[in-house]
Amino acid sequence: MSLIVMKFGGTSVGDVDRIKNAAAKVAAEVQRGHKVAVVVSAMASVTDQLIGFCRSISSRFDQREHDAVVSTGEQVTSGLMALALQQRGMNARSWQGWQVGIRTDSTHGKARIIDIDGALLRESVESGEVGVVAGFQGVTEDKRITTLGRGGSDTSAVALAVAMKADRCDIYTDVDGVYTTDPRIVEKATKMKRVSYEEMMELSSLGAKVLQVRSVEMAMRYRMPVQVLSTFSNEIGSDLPGTLVMEGNNNMEENVVTGIAYSRDEAQITLIGIADKPGVAASIFVPLARAGINIDMIVQTASSDKKTDLSFTVGKADFDRALKLLEDEKASIGYKKILSHKDVSKISLVGMGMRSHTGVAALMFETLAEKGINILVIETSEISTSVLIDEEYTELALRALHAAYGLDSK
Amino acid sequence: MSLIVMKFGGTSVGDVDRIKNAAAKVAAEVQRGHKVAVVVSAMASVTDQLIGFCRSISSRFDQREHDAVVSTGEQVTSGLMALALQQRGMNARSWQGWQVGIRTDSTHGKARIIDIDGALLRESVESGEVGVVAGFQGVTEDKRITTLGRGGSDTSAVALAVAMKADRCDIYTDVDGVYTTDPRIVEKATKMKRVSYEEMMELSSLGAKVLQVRSVEMAMRYRMPVQVLSTFSNEIGSDLPGTLVMEGNNNMEENVVTGIAYSRDEAQITLIGIADKPGVAASIFVPLARAGINIDMIVQTASSDKKTDLSFTVGKADFDRALKLLEDEKASIGYKKILSHKDVSKISLVGMGMRSHTGVAALMFETLAEKGINILVIETSEISTSVLIDEEYTELALRALHAAYGLDSK
Repeated sequence: MSLIVMKFGGTSVGDVDRIKNAAAKVAAEVQRGHKVAVVVSAMASVTDQLIGFCRSISSRFDQREHDAVVSTGEQVTSGLMALALQQRGMNARSWQGWQVGIRTDSTHGKARIIDIDGALLRESVESGEVGVVAGFQGVTEDKRITTLGRGGSDTSAVALAVAMKADRCDIYTDVDGVYTTDPRIVEKATKMKRVSYEEMMELSSLGAKVLQVRSVEMAMRYRMPVQVLSTFSNEIGSDLPGTLVMEGNNNMEENVVTGIAYSRDEAQITLIGIADKPGVAASIFVPLARAGINIDMIVQTASSDKKTDLSFTVGKADFDRALKLLEDEKASIGYKKILSHKDVSKISLVGMGMRSHTGVAALMFETLAEKGINILVIETSEISTSVLIDEEYTELALRALHAAYGLDSK
Repeated sequence: MSLIVMKFGGTSVGDVDRIKNAAAKVAAEVQRGHKVAVVVSAMASVTDQLIGFCRSISSRFDQREHDAVVSTGEQVTSGLMALALQQRGMNARSWQGWQVGIRTDSTHGKARIIDIDGALLRESVESGEVGVVAGFQGVTEDKRITTLGRGGSDTSAVALAVAMKADRCDIYTDVDGVYTTDPRIVEKATKMKRVSYEEMMELSSLGAKVLQVRSVEMAMRYRMPVQVLSTFSNEIGSDLPGTLVMEGNNNMEENVVTGIAYSRDEAQITLIGIADKPGVAASIFVPLARAGINIDMIVQTASSDKKTDLSFTVGKADFDRALKLLEDEKASIGYKKILSHKDVSKISLVGMGMRSHTGVAALMFETLAEKGINILVIETSEISTSVLIDEEYTELALRALHAAYGLDSK
């Protein structure tokens, strides 16, 4: 018997029929003899309606009130899921963030979890009741409702699993696991049985959308095993049908590269002819940071005659704002001209094996060169290597690299 | 400067534009220098949607989960109202039942308020913030959300006014006050400036729909002045444009009858030829009470040769069930036959003056007789006299009595 936290995201509880379907998944785990707590997101249509109400009343809205309104979406699903479980003859009840004691800081709209009491919930679940917790929400010390921001429900689920000392956190979603790369692009992508926390972190932060970085980070910190699996497949028989995100990687014959992520969310800016002297980088990046614009990849070319070029990427959403700011700051930075490039993609190889293997990047450059793909920027970390390329080569690059690193399904 | 609780019901906050309109009413009170707490109902469309979700998941639903789901309706309005007030430049925040400390018993779906802490809310309102409280909801000792059942939002508002030691509770609705009778039926009905708690209690329990009995009962117990007024009229200038429900009745020239209520919600059942001996009434009413069927008017005709007839009324919604039950119990009760009459109306005169005046009922019988209206049942209380008549005479009886008791507008 294990204690499992099962999390169902927005598409998994998108309407009443899907809530019933998710309830069937919960029933199956209970029938296997497990104790279960469930974490639910809001029905997408309900959230849209709530946000619509807020927008039509006020443009400059108070995030605290926005949270009070929007958090009702998860509250509704939690009650409906409890009803759906009861309808199957199970003992179930709903829990709101303030009832469980999910304490957060007071950064409304993107609050961070400080701690979870969870004693009452644990007691209830131990007694055989299925606890259905509203995800994405918490409560501040002065009793106001907060929402956790992007990826909040995954984070709620993992944090709750940690607080309850659960054996595993299962994240139900619309894909049946984590793949070596996006299977919609690369037909031969294969589902991983296991992936390490570190690799999953890199994959998530480099563009894989299956799990939010925050939740993986928390799972890694507390060594909580997380399974990614599908709400919609009817796979039965296997106890672990999805991908298990867990410590280390016990596969002796592991590939050097475990997965390939990509992102179309970035845009490149290059400043030509800046002075090659201390303080120049600060004059560029400090104003951008003050404006809340995040920088991702940065590369500076070798210097000649005291002038150099500096290239970096920002989120596509910040692109216009960043360009405007750099033009405003032209005098203080002192560059000759700006080049900008919006149609770029970042392709990233991820694998624990890259720590110990050499020549991993060389094969990447070679493979891309063979297909005539130009590399705009290169960036490496301990277990990843990323390149920026023209967006139109994205699919070609993914397929070529997937084959080159031996990831294609047999 | 006064402290006023303003309550806006479902039609007053039916959509975003109406919420904005209600916010304007609040702004007007604040501009007059008053401190204000607001109590809001849910938007009708939201509640319908939530109930629809529950029904499509489960027929035999758990009232606790139903409360968790349905109470989000008021939560949404409270947040939206706070946003609408902020949009007008006011300092405002939302309060849920559990945040204010509206403690109820655990009769989910129709919980009763035990007490209200209200200290935090009072402090916030005293500091000049407008507190917007989600009506219709509370929290049990073990932290579960309850709803108060029919008329719950009015009751929330009055209870909150009492707890905050407010000077007045204003109930905004779709009519501009309490009338001598239904102005949709009697054109010459007039709006009362004042009405006593006792009269309002009678009027509400005898069919006037403007205020829920529970809220009037609470206002009377704590002597909280309640004003009924319209959300939609633009009447300005007057500080008390509606009807004030308050202690006693200072009007020296008061009418004997203050108002006339009616109800089409009852149906009459008559048992012919029952034994005129002890225990017969119990054999009839105990089974009905066990089935949760409320009895209103009861009349027993004078007995002859040990047999008598007994007539009473039940709610129209319970009519079929009551008949079935009485037929099942025929042997144990021992009656000859049942007569039933669904198309009846109850007409009630209400007035404090009836305590001291005689001949009030006589004028009623005379007036109805003149119009050829037959009286089926008569019932009196200290400050009311009610008759049951054929439903088709409802309007005629109301107009005739309204004129006879001098209530017609000049």
